[in-house]
Amino acid sequence: MTAIEKLEAACRSRDSLLCLGLDPDPERLPAHLGTGPEAVLAFNEAILEATCDRVAACKPNLAFYEAMGIDGWRVLEATLRRIPPEMPVILDAKRGDIGATARMYARAIFDRLGADAVTVNPYLGREALQPFVAHADKLTFVLAATSNPGAGELQDLEADGLPLYRRIARMAAELDGRPGAVGLVVGATVPEKLAAVRAEAPSLWILLPGVGAQGGALDASLAAGLDARGQGLLVTVSRAILYADGGRGFAEAAREAAVTLDERIRRIRDALRC
Amino acid sequence: MTAIEKLEAACRSRDSLLCLGLDPDPERLPAHLGTGPEAVLAFNEAILEATCDRVAACKPNLAFYEAMGIDGWRVLEATLRRIPPEMPVILDAKRGDIGATARMYARAIFDRLGADAVTVNPYLGREALQPFVAHADKLTFVLAATSNPGAGELQDLEADGLPLYRRIARMAAELDGRPGAVGLVVGATVPEKLAAVRAEAPSLWILLPGVGAQGGALDASLAAGLDARGQGLLVTVSRAILYADGGRGFAEAAREAAVTLDERIRRIRDALRC
Repeated sequence: MTAIEKLEAACRSRDSLLCLGLDPDPERLPAHLGTGPEAVLAFNEAILEATCDRVAACKPNLAFYEAMGIDGWRVLEATLRRIPPEMPVILDAKRGDIGATARMYARAIFDRLGADAVTVNPYLGREALQPFVAHADKLTFVLAATSNPGAGELQDLEADGLPLYRRIARMAAELDGRPGAVGLVVGATVPEKLAAVRAEAPSLWILLPGVGAQGGALDASLAAGLDARGQGLLVTVSRAILYADGGRGFAEAAREAAVTLDERIRRIRDALRC
Repeated sequence: MTAIEKLEAACRSRDSLLCLGLDPDPERLPAHLGTGPEAVLAFNEAILEATCDRVAACKPNLAFYEAMGIDGWRVLEATLRRIPPEMPVILDAKRGDIGATARMYARAIFDRLGADAVTVNPYLGREALQPFVAHADKLTFVLAATSNPGAGELQDLEADGLPLYRRIARMAAELDGRPGAVGLVVGATVPEKLAAVRAEAPSLWILLPGVGAQGGALDASLAAGLDARGQGLLVTVSRAILYADGGRGFAEAAREAAVTLDERIRRIRDALRC
């Protein structure tokens, strides 16, 4: 089963387009869990157990694990073992390097860590993305428009009348020789950009961060980003689920936040279908 | 002592602008070292010992360590302990993410791994680079023009008459509020680009990959990239040193390659001063 088949099956079986951003900040853990790597792992386990029937995919961001040093890699590997086998794992790595080095990153993420999908940075051009895309059973999400406040400084620059983020969407669609090997990352903070990306890449899966703590509008994003089948969009939420409650009830609160989001997404999708 | 002071002192004391790219590929190790993480560490130790009086800085690329999984982090940490304390360590990470996540990467690289400098990707704009640059005693090298064959696809795009790589050089120079906190990465493969970057950022240190295995011209690069003081350029070489000989003489051959390069750089600098 390829990564895209696994992702589509998980979305179907859970009737969900929600993706859990599993980015544990050691400074924001509930106090009763203690501190250190074991506390982070216990936190991840509880969050996964509380939410995994309502989220279609799981997206750990490597930065949060690397910040713990070698212990962080242990926590990451242990966390990956706790993710239900039918749930696709997207490692949010935003890697990008020259070919010989990109091959090493692809090996780290797909072979060593066993992820189904990765996020990559397009600044070095499509040639440098090939070592990821060459893993034809995996899924490579290319950053197009990001959700940070300063995203537009370079991404909105127009060359030959085409903003950079749209050019990258077009490049990603062209790279997707075997449909389902390439996706895109587009922040929910500017729905107009999401619509423009969807126009360039009608059939690619789009990873949508920026809802929740970052304030992106969910309804406008779904209207702009769903594909013709009413799917193809993965709403990824981290802080609004992980830190819904900072005390002993954190796991229940995380579940409640995930269920609320999942149901909001479902209602908006239903309304859009009418 | 700040990272830039450490770098300039190391260049001065060794009269060298050479940087060792410590990127061990497990498949290219001399056979007599065996295989696995211990072999990689032994390789790194021998290379460092053989070359460290002729190179001004050391640049491990994280991809090569991550590709070994958790063992790779052990090898990286052990390797970092073997680097002479006066030699600056540039971790080639090419990271780039939204602010909250970039802070975690900066913590991983500067605090956990104790590096003096890092390479970062500018695609998310200067706002997302601030968490690195905020470490005012460290040095953050921003990718401008890379050395891969397809680098120009996005980097050469012109918006308002300015190619993207030049705009990034200008942005980096503006970001360098405390002089010496920001540098640039420019591949040696196109000396004209290096000259254009130097014009935008007269006083920034430039990290120059692409000489050696990638075929960039050393003399044209030095002519285009040295600053007004005849320095400010770090020639980073990996494969041409590491794999100068694939057998039992690998360390001696690595030293010979480093000495030859170092002397070529010195001769070209002398000629340029005339």
